[in-house]
Amino acid sequence: MTTPQLQSYIAGRWIGAEPAQALRSAIDNGVVAHTHAESIDFAEALEHARKVGLPALMAMDFQQRAAALKALAKYLGERKEEMYELSVHTGATRTDGWVDIEGGTGTLFAYASMAKELPRSGNLWHEGQQMSLGKTGAFAGTHVLVPRGGVAVHINAFNFPVWGLLEKFAPTFLAGMPSIGKPATATSFLTEKLVRLINDSGILPEGSLQLVIGGTGDLLDRLDVSDVVTFTGSADTAAKLRVSPNIIKNSIPFNAEADSLNCAILAPDVTPDDEEFDLFVKEIAREMTQKAGQKCTAIRRAIVPAQHIDAVAAKLKERLAKTTVGDPRLENVRMGALASKSQQKDVGDRVDTLREGAEVVFGGSQDFSPVGDGAENGAFFQPTLLLARDAENHSAHDVEAFGPVSTLMAYSGGIEAAVALAAKGRGSLAGTLVTKSAEVAAQVIPQMAMLHGRLQILDRAAAPESTGHGSALPFLKHGGPGRAGGGEELGGLRAVKHMMQRAAVQGSPAMLAAVTGETS
Amino acid sequence: MTTPQLQSYIAGRWIGAEPAQALRSAIDNGVVAHTHAESIDFAEALEHARKVGLPALMAMDFQQRAAALKALAKYLGERKEEMYELSVHTGATRTDGWVDIEGGTGTLFAYASMAKELPRSGNLWHEGQQMSLGKTGAFAGTHVLVPRGGVAVHINAFNFPVWGLLEKFAPTFLAGMPSIGKPATATSFLTEKLVRLINDSGILPEGSLQLVIGGTGDLLDRLDVSDVVTFTGSADTAAKLRVSPNIIKNSIPFNAEADSLNCAILAPDVTPDDEEFDLFVKEIAREMTQKAGQKCTAIRRAIVPAQHIDAVAAKLKERLAKTTVGDPRLENVRMGALASKSQQKDVGDRVDTLREGAEVVFGGSQDFSPVGDGAENGAFFQPTLLLARDAENHSAHDVEAFGPVSTLMAYSGGIEAAVALAAKGRGSLAGTLVTKSAEVAAQVIPQMAMLHGRLQILDRAAAPESTGHGSALPFLKHGGPGRAGGGEELGGLRAVKHMMQRAAVQGSPAMLAAVTGETS
Repeated sequence: MTTPQLQSYIAGRWIGAEPAQALRSAIDNGVVAHTHAESIDFAEALEHARKVGLPALMAMDFQQRAAALKALAKYLGERKEEMYELSVHTGATRTDGWVDIEGGTGTLFAYASMAKELPRSGNLWHEGQQMSLGKTGAFAGTHVLVPRGGVAVHINAFNFPVWGLLEKFAPTFLAGMPSIGKPATATSFLTEKLVRLINDSGILPEGSLQLVIGGTGDLLDRLDVSDVVTFTGSADTAAKLRVSPNIIKNSIPFNAEADSLNCAILAPDVTPDDEEFDLFVKEIAREMTQKAGQKCTAIRRAIVPAQHIDAVAAKLKERLAKTTVGDPRLENVRMGALASKSQQKDVGDRVDTLREGAEVVFGGSQDFSPVGDGAENGAFFQPTLLLARDAENHSAHDVEAFGPVSTLMAYSGGIEAAVALAAKGRGSLAGTLVTKSAEVAAQVIPQMAMLHGRLQILDRAAAPESTGHGSALPFLKHGGPGRAGGGEELGGLRAVKHMMQRAAVQGSPAMLAAVTGETS
Repeated sequence: MTTPQLQSYIAGRWIGAEPAQALRSAIDNGVVAHTHAESIDFAEALEHARKVGLPALMAMDFQQRAAALKALAKYLGERKEEMYELSVHTGATRTDGWVDIEGGTGTLFAYASMAKELPRSGNLWHEGQQMSLGKTGAFAGTHVLVPRGGVAVHINAFNFPVWGLLEKFAPTFLAGMPSIGKPATATSFLTEKLVRLINDSGILPEGSLQLVIGGTGDLLDRLDVSDVVTFTGSADTAAKLRVSPNIIKNSIPFNAEADSLNCAILAPDVTPDDEEFDLFVKEIAREMTQKAGQKCTAIRRAIVPAQHIDAVAAKLKERLAKTTVGDPRLENVRMGALASKSQQKDVGDRVDTLREGAEVVFGGSQDFSPVGDGAENGAFFQPTLLLARDAENHSAHDVEAFGPVSTLMAYSGGIEAAVALAAKGRGSLAGTLVTKSAEVAAQVIPQMAMLHGRLQILDRAAAPESTGHGSALPFLKHGGPGRAGGGEELGGLRAVKHMMQRAAVQGSPAMLAAVTGETS
């Protein structure tokens, strides 16, 4: 059996016949697919988006685009098994795949549902209210949002090959903007499958979504004032790309979402006898093992009262010891592999750094053996829990191991000390506070909010329906300040607004009514 | 009489006893003041903002800060003549000074008035709505905005020494963030006066506003993840500052507002007999001469149907010929000077470029003589109107003369041709459409909105109360895409939100109610 040849989808055709880089399965290191050697003409891709995609999108209105998103979600949902089949080679268990694949289609459904808040027709969104700018009411002002008239380039990380593209694509499409998606190469075989399914569906107008397998070449240098870049990945790469001279020169919005050193805090009011104590332990364990810890939002720092840290460590150790790691196709396996051998090496190196000044509670073992045929060749990594009693100065505030790795950090002296430790992450995507006390929540959440994009308050009341610390949801903001990149994605219609252009409009009430389509 | 020694206001004291650069009057080139030679310890300034200003601001709530803004506006209003006295040396007429000085206090009043939309107490702003995230309602999510906990650095241009600082300071203060203001050096004598008045008032808590006379040294390198930079000035300087490694590394929001090649379009439905024809002419003339054309929003490109361009040129020429230019203290003077001799030279150079491929309708004369004693030494510039019949390829789409200079550009073949010319500005702060037709407005405004921050529809109904093409208003967005910098200022409470941090919060309805202070 020959391995599939991946292709880019550019200007209405699939490009790529000559194999270049071999992409390997995270499970057994076998070759899954090849990228293509043919280079892409990015001028052509942009021209296609502008001349074919954009007019087609503008011929639709918000409601029609929402209907297309819904139809697409349904179509992909019916074909999800084709994606799950490939998803295992990214190292994902069925549950991990669910987050990526059904999380992706769920995001399409969610954005489709937002149409009820959007104009019934047309592509101009009146963002009220209208205000009089004079004494007699002859001159007034208001705001409108219009499609930017440009192209969105979406650059994604390897950990969410399906959701990563769809969560950026959905608000972009709804906003009336064509997309060019560039997934991380390592897991691009799954994104390619997604785009093939989308293309086969015939639901989207041609030119509204193009796919780049491989590098972006001179794409960013060719963007113009109406275009947008969104980026998910490392802070280092974000820093490099966002200063591209052309991006700066044309003030091209660059939305960055970088992984961060997210924390969970166990408040001092929770004792080992409380249900919340176990909820905290479970949350840490889940965040460590789900997607083998490869989530930008995963808990890297578990901040625990010093008097309870050994109890937390003991319970977590017990849980992690029961987590079977290996080939995600096996029924008893609870945690799969990292996405690639290079990630495996990288995470190992970071753990070496994190071990300085920390005890190893679980993992970090050389004789770790994942289950499954050929798993010894895979990119598996043992869940690794560290414990830093001198939390103040530990490297876990700076160094991220992007895998099933977390550090317990002790605090003494009240919740303020925990909040101070949390702040040492210098900006995070997500944080969790486990407390029974509404007073503690009311005190701590506004402080944590200064440096977080999303916060969960976890207690026994919330637990039965909690969507979990790490889950980015379509209706809630995803993106954090500082280290987390300073961007904002999702959050309901906020994400659609980010893909549009806002303008104030002034004139007589009659003229404003003509523009907004509302009779005055 | 010794000229005043300007001082910076840093860490609660005025710094500067030794003169450095001489700042000269735009009217007669006499020395108005000196900057100071002493260097500023920016570490101390930031420490002061964080340790003194921030806690003082956080001890107030939105309502109290709004009340302080209102009291300050009143206080400054009562002392405005002290500012007008200095304002003339920036080259400003009384009317120009009104835009700067009373425009500034008016912006304080406006932001104070917005308190009615803000929480009645505290510093957490609940940005609804709350949504259930499960089937039973046990887990819900919402968004909050909190003060960022950092410092705002406001870097301003020379053309609005008062308004420039106040329009940035007002939303920042309301948001609970201390400011460090850095005015452009050339006209910093007026900003220093403003800050002295503010300081004398005792209305603001110490540390909420510091003033930098001179360069910013290592200030930007010392900023942290919670800080913010806002910049108004040239696109070149914006491009340089926004890629500062520390800004990038810490994802520090950098809001840029750059001058742009704003346009006004005369729609084909307007004939020389229409009132709107004269409104167009008046608007161009006013934008050319107000503040001697030194507004980021001024009309640089007047886009006119080819069949009417000579009629427009004739009427404008007549108007400009009647505009007395000179010492703004003289009663008959209608237009003052550019801000400095260096601006005078710069505008002259740009006009030389713009003259290529254009006819000179008015101005550009060597024997131009401004009125007033010593005016021959001042930074005066004759209003200069150019006409480009081949508008498509004229440099006015790229080259900005930041003075009383505008270019008439001819179009043929319907309003779409005018819109296409407008787009050649590649992103503008403001645009005006003069039309009688609601249909034309409904067609053109959504297209122009893609590349504009603010748009005015001008007709006879709107004219009596029109605030004018160039006026940035507190309740309407100020800032445009592309060449205009891609930023957003003002626009009512949007500007306050930009100075705060948004976080999604998830938890049980009871916990969310405790955080937002609303009983569920």
